[in-house]
Amino acid sequence: MNNYVITFKPINQKISIPEGSTLKDAIVKSGLDFDFPCGGIGKCGKCAVKVLSPKIETLKKELEHLSKNEILKNIHLACLTEIHDNMIVELNMRKNTDYNILQSSVEKKSDLLPLLKKDFIQLDAPSLENQKSDLNRLREKLTLKNSEYKNLKIGISTLRQLPDKLREACNKVTVVIGKDEILGIEEGDTCHKMFGIAFDIGTTTVVGYLMDLYSGKELAVSSSLNPQIKFGADVISRTNYANQNNNGLESLQSTIVKLLNELIDNVSQKSNVKKDDIYVSTVVGNTCMHHLFLGLTPRYIAAVPYVPVVNESVKLSALELKLNINPNGRVFALPTIAGFVGADTVAVILATDMDKSKDIKLAVDIGTNGEMVLGSSKKLVSCSTAAGPAFEGAQISSGMRGANGAIDHVYFGKEMTYTVIGNEKPRGICGSGLLDIIAGFVKVGLINKRGKLLSPDKFTNPAAKKYSDRIISYNNANAFLMVSESETAYDNPILVTQKDITSLQLAKGAISAGIKILIKNLGINLDDIKEVLLAGAFGNYMNPHSACTIGLIPKELESKIKLVGNAAGSGAKLALLSQSEFERADRIANKVTYIELGAQKHFNLEFARGMQF
Amino acid sequence: MNNYVITFKPINQKISIPEGSTLKDAIVKSGLDFDFPCGGIGKCGKCAVKVLSPKIETLKKELEHLSKNEILKNIHLACLTEIHDNMIVELNMRKNTDYNILQSSVEKKSDLLPLLKKDFIQLDAPSLENQKSDLNRLREKLTLKNSEYKNLKIGISTLRQLPDKLREACNKVTVVIGKDEILGIEEGDTCHKMFGIAFDIGTTTVVGYLMDLYSGKELAVSSSLNPQIKFGADVISRTNYANQNNNGLESLQSTIVKLLNELIDNVSQKSNVKKDDIYVSTVVGNTCMHHLFLGLTPRYIAAVPYVPVVNESVKLSALELKLNINPNGRVFALPTIAGFVGADTVAVILATDMDKSKDIKLAVDIGTNGEMVLGSSKKLVSCSTAAGPAFEGAQISSGMRGANGAIDHVYFGKEMTYTVIGNEKPRGICGSGLLDIIAGFVKVGLINKRGKLLSPDKFTNPAAKKYSDRIISYNNANAFLMVSESETAYDNPILVTQKDITSLQLAKGAISAGIKILIKNLGINLDDIKEVLLAGAFGNYMNPHSACTIGLIPKELESKIKLVGNAAGSGAKLALLSQSEFERADRIANKVTYIELGAQKHFNLEFARGMQF
Repeated sequence: MNNYVITFKPINQKISIPEGSTLKDAIVKSGLDFDFPCGGIGKCGKCAVKVLSPKIETLKKELEHLSKNEILKNIHLACLTEIHDNMIVELNMRKNTDYNILQSSVEKKSDLLPLLKKDFIQLDAPSLENQKSDLNRLREKLTLKNSEYKNLKIGISTLRQLPDKLREACNKVTVVIGKDEILGIEEGDTCHKMFGIAFDIGTTTVVGYLMDLYSGKELAVSSSLNPQIKFGADVISRTNYANQNNNGLESLQSTIVKLLNELIDNVSQKSNVKKDDIYVSTVVGNTCMHHLFLGLTPRYIAAVPYVPVVNESVKLSALELKLNINPNGRVFALPTIAGFVGADTVAVILATDMDKSKDIKLAVDIGTNGEMVLGSSKKLVSCSTAAGPAFEGAQISSGMRGANGAIDHVYFGKEMTYTVIGNEKPRGICGSGLLDIIAGFVKVGLINKRGKLLSPDKFTNPAAKKYSDRIISYNNANAFLMVSESETAYDNPILVTQKDITSLQLAKGAISAGIKILIKNLGINLDDIKEVLLAGAFGNYMNPHSACTIGLIPKELESKIKLVGNAAGSGAKLALLSQSEFERADRIANKVTYIELGAQKHFNLEFARGMQF
Repeated sequence: MNNYVITFKPINQKISIPEGSTLKDAIVKSGLDFDFPCGGIGKCGKCAVKVLSPKIETLKKELEHLSKNEILKNIHLACLTEIHDNMIVELNMRKNTDYNILQSSVEKKSDLLPLLKKDFIQLDAPSLENQKSDLNRLREKLTLKNSEYKNLKIGISTLRQLPDKLREACNKVTVVIGKDEILGIEEGDTCHKMFGIAFDIGTTTVVGYLMDLYSGKELAVSSSLNPQIKFGADVISRTNYANQNNNGLESLQSTIVKLLNELIDNVSQKSNVKKDDIYVSTVVGNTCMHHLFLGLTPRYIAAVPYVPVVNESVKLSALELKLNINPNGRVFALPTIAGFVGADTVAVILATDMDKSKDIKLAVDIGTNGEMVLGSSKKLVSCSTAAGPAFEGAQISSGMRGANGAIDHVYFGKEMTYTVIGNEKPRGICGSGLLDIIAGFVKVGLINKRGKLLSPDKFTNPAAKKYSDRIISYNNANAFLMVSESETAYDNPILVTQKDITSLQLAKGAISAGIKILIKNLGINLDDIKEVLLAGAFGNYMNPHSACTIGLIPKELESKIKLVGNAAGSGAKLALLSQSEFERADRIANKVTYIELGAQKHFNLEFARGMQF
């Protein structure tokens, strides 16, 4: 079989690859950071690349995703393009710095009793009169400090370091203690050096928070897109990748661990904290991200009856995960609630104290999926819907993530105005922008109750008139010309198609139905809800008024909305800073009742209702 | 630097090695099984090899170890011979089958409640009405079986296997439980398949016992010399090797683990038990062997104040030790008492129930070191002496181990007669043979009280006369011609020199002083001792009458001697078969008082007395 050389511009990276492979194979094999939102099955059209040479024919399957302009420019979908020649290909690779990733979070004080403890002790020197083993002499003094230390375990690697460490330190050492075990022995008094890192692994973005466990302060934050995106944008396509490829699960796991190690490097450099001084890490994420990180198959989450391998919190050694903190360090994955309500939701509850609140609160976290929790200290119910892709730009014709060039907010005032991330020429629309646009459509009467984009002759609201010229025909339906060809970055018009509106309708229908079903299950009324907590990136960037206008969130709750930032990240930090908060996470996961929407008889009705505007 | 090729005969193995290396380096680098009892420092003279080409000069330092005959035959000490040419070298490599290794032991019934448990359960199938995680459904049924199973831990590797195992097995699985954790999930009902392996790691020999934990029966035994011998015959020379070489400790550890894996292969083949079905292992050994096996430095055991890293029992994963039982399996090293009284002594006490006995007993285990324990359920005291080398053949001019060709028993009756292991021409004298010879010298009056080998003119006992011809002059002292040149396997006479007698005197003086000091410490008289338990290889091969004749064991105790075989191995098996016996081992280790002989003011006096015949 022939091998061909593919050259990627502008970085000039080359790779040799067998005939018949796809450009996607070449990109993945090269380790380049490039997205395949649908997992590379020709469905989303987001992996378009410009083939500089040779000129190749456009496939039928590509036609539905490419404009004429793009076809003329020899633009192709990497996942569908087979290699039968040497090729030169231009990639628009994403840069992390292009993205706004939500790192900030509303902080909550916790009693500082972190997952890690340190105690400085001075051992008796051994002598012919005191021939006790090194470990016995250590235990003796430790137990004097705290009788709970009596039965601390000690791993073989720490035991191996013990004798030389004691003698180098003239018997004056600091013992590093994690929960029920001795994790390290350090020379002299290092009690003030206690560090941990909390990770929030989202389907799309990952954030790492380096925490000073002695002071409780955050020392540095680092974030990135989740590089597993190259295996698929959502949990289902990644699960498929894990199931259908040899070592698929291992690839997904090593990809996320590699990223976490980069974040560790980054916060370590920013803060001048040595990686070896980081002994603990907490991790939250949705159940699929959680399973992929732990190397647990997500196969049975993705299919009926959506069962995870494990719900309770999991403790691992940093070494077995290959996480580059201290090799004796421990990693704690917070518990999950169900296959589609994960440790991130547990962390949101932990951070917002919903489980302790007398008032009933609703928490909504719309990321790639939409998770909701409703209740108070009495009872908490939760559910999840596959809401995400519309808000993450994946299934929207001109959709894109919240990166430079994305229209992020739109105002239908006297004029329609919009803002673009990075103040560039627009390249597409991100979720918050789409939400504003559809809310505007509702407000000025461009769409009817069922979401149909009206032709100008059907307008009934006078405010709609001024947009008449923007209604164009596209694929046998109406579309809204958001930005004309001449004003965009890529010489393609930015449209909102009928299909886009339908995608958003499906998403908002599902979330609104989810909220209704939670309310019904708890046996309360809308009025009983005292606060709506919006967690996660989308919830914090979107305009809450738009969300209520389209009915994503019930209109009656608009005044009760409160933004809580990356509450999942806050929860991960809290668990790191306080052993009792960590233990509370397990109690929360046990306490929350998960409601499988698909199994609710009223769901279809509520869903259909929720789709209306 | 030039490299030269060394060819080892008769196996025809070649190795290329830089000029200036020694033949020892070449042998060790080749991974050949060859002994350097003194650790390769030119002290013991036991690493003699025949250089077939070229003819090389004999060094001054070699002269004291080689006979004229050997010098003529171009025999050299491998550890002293530098390489400055291609060489062909003949090795007398040891074969394991040549050796008699004590495997058998007096058995003791234990309650069968092994370190491993298995439980067969059938899980509820998951459904939309029961979306509990795999682990939760497992815990649910396990807890129904036994409420103690509620908080069993589970490692990530077992968790990773859980989902597919459950589905392959249609939810009918056997859970493998070790102490407080789930070690494995097996398809169907495998409760009757429960295996463990107990190891006794001696300085010289290693034995592995494969046990059926379901029936309590021993299924197979395999034994071998300890291949660490190439780094030194005794604990001190191995400790020196570990301290003085890069990765010395790692080499010693990987060498013993490799052997244990060979023994596992061997018992697995003999018994048709799959290695993956072996989930637990117990290990005993003296403290140095114990530390080397665990990868703990023996450095501080070897120097004043002789402190081990750890005394309590240690649990490790088979994976981290690279021990080829089930990768999720656990290895339990029994506790040690002191730097020179190890887990083997704990196992001897466990097997003989000394700690439960109303009667005062004395246990003596003479291996490379000599360990002694005295006492009853009230109190136990122990000590150790570096008695070994004389009995293991190391510092004896014609000494050798108990292998084919060794004179193992000698009778001074009407004639002096002897037996040779393997019924071959004699090659040397092993420990039990030397003991009989010296006892014979005492009996017929060839030596005086102080151990001096008399010239015939000084004989006072008529029985000595017939041996007059055998008294020859050697290195300015008398020597006893045991076997003349013409009757030995190597055309060299077998002698017992004055130096040999002194070596044995030192050894027996130390042991006899140790016993006296234990008696004094316990505040008892010789008469109070009801039983003397001889454990270990030497104790079981030697003639107890000879031992009492020379005063190695007080004459008064001769009638109370009982052979208990490899009691250390029995103890390791008991701990495997019964969790409560395993826990008793830790209590025993805590209970036994260790007495440092060197720190006892009466020791030198007792030692000097003990050296007399």
